[in-house]
Amino acid sequence: MRRLLAAVPFLLLLAGGSPPPDPVASYRKAHEHALLREYLDFLSIPNVASDQNHIRQNAEHLMQMMDRRGLNPRLLTLADPQAPPAVYGEWTQPGATHTLLFYAHFDGQPTDPAQWHGSHPWQPVLRTAKLGLPGSQLVPVPEPGKPIDPEWRIYARSASDDKAGVMAILAAVEALRASRLTPRYNLKFFFEGEEEAGSPHLADLLTHYRELFQGDAWIICDGPVHQSGRKQVVFGVRGDTNVDLTVYGANAPLHSGHYGNWAPNPGLRLTNLLASMKDSTGHVTIEGWYDDVEPLGERERQALAAAPAYDQELRQRLGFGQAEGGGQALLTLITQPSLNINGMHSGDVGELARNVIPTTATAVLDLRLVRGNDHVRQVEKLRQHVRRQGYHVIDHTPTDAERAQYPMLAQVVERPGGYNAARTPMDLPIARQIVAAVQSTTTQPVVQLPTGGGSLPLVLFQEKTGAPTITVPIANFDNNQHAEDENIRLQNLWDGIDMMAALMMQPDRP
Amino acid sequence: MRRLLAAVPFLLLLAGGSPPPDPVASYRKAHEHALLREYLDFLSIPNVASDQNHIRQNAEHLMQMMDRRGLNPRLLTLADPQAPPAVYGEWTQPGATHTLLFYAHFDGQPTDPAQWHGSHPWQPVLRTAKLGLPGSQLVPVPEPGKPIDPEWRIYARSASDDKAGVMAILAAVEALRASRLTPRYNLKFFFEGEEEAGSPHLADLLTHYRELFQGDAWIICDGPVHQSGRKQVVFGVRGDTNVDLTVYGANAPLHSGHYGNWAPNPGLRLTNLLASMKDSTGHVTIEGWYDDVEPLGERERQALAAAPAYDQELRQRLGFGQAEGGGQALLTLITQPSLNINGMHSGDVGELARNVIPTTATAVLDLRLVRGNDHVRQVEKLRQHVRRQGYHVIDHTPTDAERAQYPMLAQVVERPGGYNAARTPMDLPIARQIVAAVQSTTTQPVVQLPTGGGSLPLVLFQEKTGAPTITVPIANFDNNQHAEDENIRLQNLWDGIDMMAALMMQPDRP
Repeated sequence: MRRLLAAVPFLLLLAGGSPPPDPVASYRKAHEHALLREYLDFLSIPNVASDQNHIRQNAEHLMQMMDRRGLNPRLLTLADPQAPPAVYGEWTQPGATHTLLFYAHFDGQPTDPAQWHGSHPWQPVLRTAKLGLPGSQLVPVPEPGKPIDPEWRIYARSASDDKAGVMAILAAVEALRASRLTPRYNLKFFFEGEEEAGSPHLADLLTHYRELFQGDAWIICDGPVHQSGRKQVVFGVRGDTNVDLTVYGANAPLHSGHYGNWAPNPGLRLTNLLASMKDSTGHVTIEGWYDDVEPLGERERQALAAAPAYDQELRQRLGFGQAEGGGQALLTLITQPSLNINGMHSGDVGELARNVIPTTATAVLDLRLVRGNDHVRQVEKLRQHVRRQGYHVIDHTPTDAERAQYPMLAQVVERPGGYNAARTPMDLPIARQIVAAVQSTTTQPVVQLPTGGGSLPLVLFQEKTGAPTITVPIANFDNNQHAEDENIRLQNLWDGIDMMAALMMQPDRP
Repeated sequence: MRRLLAAVPFLLLLAGGSPPPDPVASYRKAHEHALLREYLDFLSIPNVASDQNHIRQNAEHLMQMMDRRGLNPRLLTLADPQAPPAVYGEWTQPGATHTLLFYAHFDGQPTDPAQWHGSHPWQPVLRTAKLGLPGSQLVPVPEPGKPIDPEWRIYARSASDDKAGVMAILAAVEALRASRLTPRYNLKFFFEGEEEAGSPHLADLLTHYRELFQGDAWIICDGPVHQSGRKQVVFGVRGDTNVDLTVYGANAPLHSGHYGNWAPNPGLRLTNLLASMKDSTGHVTIEGWYDDVEPLGERERQALAAAPAYDQELRQRLGFGQAEGGGQALLTLITQPSLNINGMHSGDVGELARNVIPTTATAVLDLRLVRGNDHVRQVEKLRQHVRRQGYHVIDHTPTDAERAQYPMLAQVVERPGGYNAARTPMDLPIARQIVAAVQSTTTQPVVQLPTGGGSLPLVLFQEKTGAPTITVPIANFDNNQHAEDENIRLQNLWDGIDMMAALMMQPDRP
């Protein structure tokens, strides 16, 4: 019923009242066994983006799933033989003047099957509870007529990220059609096959098929709901780029007894350099680091203030006593640009450690960007900071001449693939409407985030199609995204179907 | 002749005069071919300490070499089956009241033959010059009568470290005996077979066979001459210990976009912690780090002042523009305790880098110690410093309860095998005499160092036998000690024979 309300004026929702029966939920409940089996079949096809044959098999399987639902699917390909196919479909309405574009991806992160516990990434299984919890056990797929516990979880690669998005969208269409409910919008569906590889052909796809992608807003169905379990609508993603930073000592490894504390230790240089970039609270001290940031609007600040205070519980779950950020909330911190040390190596540790002064020390930095930042400009600030610490900055391994000329050398190289942030203003009419639709499917207040902490190249959607992007995730927070033992809680999938149907059934644009 | 002068009063040497012919040098020149072939045979036996069969084969081969020289060799063994044999011999003189003990080791560092260039570690070859220099090429072992260029080098494991010490000592004995020159000291010879494994049975050997090791001074024949090529006498070694330091973030790797700059980054914590231990000049800022240091005596300070100023040239050869130490000379810095980062790891770099916040960051630290320091006490200063930075220090992986209780956790563990420094006062009469003997073999002033930068457990020799240790090295500085392509320049071996003979022929104790 909650999605039906979304089709009536918002004030009515606020006024409350006795809800009519909910045909989508009823349909889903009556067809859970079939939906579950269809989903398990879909999850059985390996889906690493670089595995072209299997990605094509996924795309063809997905076309059949869409064809059964009358979505007129087509394969989107590019001349580039490296570009895996994407899948497009649509459900248009006579007389509709506005269009919603739904996005999800059917590829998944690479994974080592040996790292999985008791199941295989592409042989989906059902468990009665989260792996590792007391009483969690494998359970066979129930025969029709037998109950399906919504707390059960499916374990498989992409069970949550992001075939769940694809499945929820298609099941919502099916339920609406079966219930003879007709959206007021034209609906378009775009399912990508290489998101986890960094979407290298997304810009070309959006350009080449730009006619297909005319619409009023993108609904991005990817990612987890809030850690508290509450549903959330996320209006932005951060940009992202990575930098390799290497500093140098002598031109050969030296005996740490004979030369230590005279020959420069690159590990010490790197620790001094990295320590100079952030204070002990994690605040970035690089000059101008926060200068470009577009301030949040009033609506965004209110939304953050209204978000649940969940940091303390999260901190306990993650097993650490003191956060960075000088007491600011996680949700506030992710509206700021960040600088993270993803990795750091100099010499060896453990069994291989020797009494040497290594020749280099290297860190890989992750720079998250928010609206206003530009990744090239942000990396240049970093480079300037390194210079201000006395380094001559190069983009290559130093030559003998450079070693002779400069007392301190640092190689700073931005990796390919960096991109900027995207954020949709929360006070757009379509934004308010989408929040209302999601709110119609839950009694708990929907968490609204100006931006998530993670990154997707949503800036491409905005630049290439002109339409804003709004992310409506469905997966459980503890889904082991990108890791072994990825899973989805069935109730999250069922809720996702309800939510996608509500989004499809929202009223005409105000 | 130069060594003969050592047998006459020292004043005579200073007075100069026309030198008599040098029987040791003459003998060596006349027997170079035989000595070279004997040495190549010795180098052909693999000698990694853990390779017990080969170590025993080395010991038996060495006993034959000693037997041919009338040194009454015997195998020194212990009840512990893990203890490899050492070899002992002696050349005693009727009526001699004083004894010199010569030490060298016949085992070598492990090495990967695949890393060697154009030869195998245990198939010695001759090259016309240092590998990599223009014109350097392999040369066959010359037939008797053909000239041997003293600039040629032998490439083999332990060619310099430290079978060269063994060979020089035995060849010196041979030349003295053939020249009918009789030392005034009793001479004892102790050749160890597991120095490169950290001498784990040395203390037991020195204790078990303490009767054999009565003497007035140890002459340690190991290590390289000064980088300038000048001979040196080294009166001490630094102590050494290693510490594993690990700091912690969350209990699982986290997405650096969703949690970065809120969840603590262990790499950032480690950089702050390590940076707090040293200033930008490399001076250790841990409280009390230099407090225990026994000041150098007047003689030691004079010796340092007289040592050649070689740092600038060395810096150029090693390819770095700015040393640590705030302008202090290398030879001064190695008379101080040091703190070196041997290795540092957090997460991954290069191809394996991912956008994660790693769970830990680890460094392996190398603490060199000088006289006055105690390794347990020095590690405790480090531990206290870590505490003062706000950490709760543990010696194990943190439990969930510790994670909940303490905001910042650091594991600090001293590795087994640490030991203290040893230094012999430079103004002991025996010390002056040994310098004079070495000086008698060269026209360049002998470099005298209060201590070397490296470490050997010489403190054991002093504690177990009561005799001081003085190191007289012979290898060329660029011998690739411990690495692939280890080598010795033949002139260094020839000079080493002369030096050892001069040391054996020194006058009675004053």
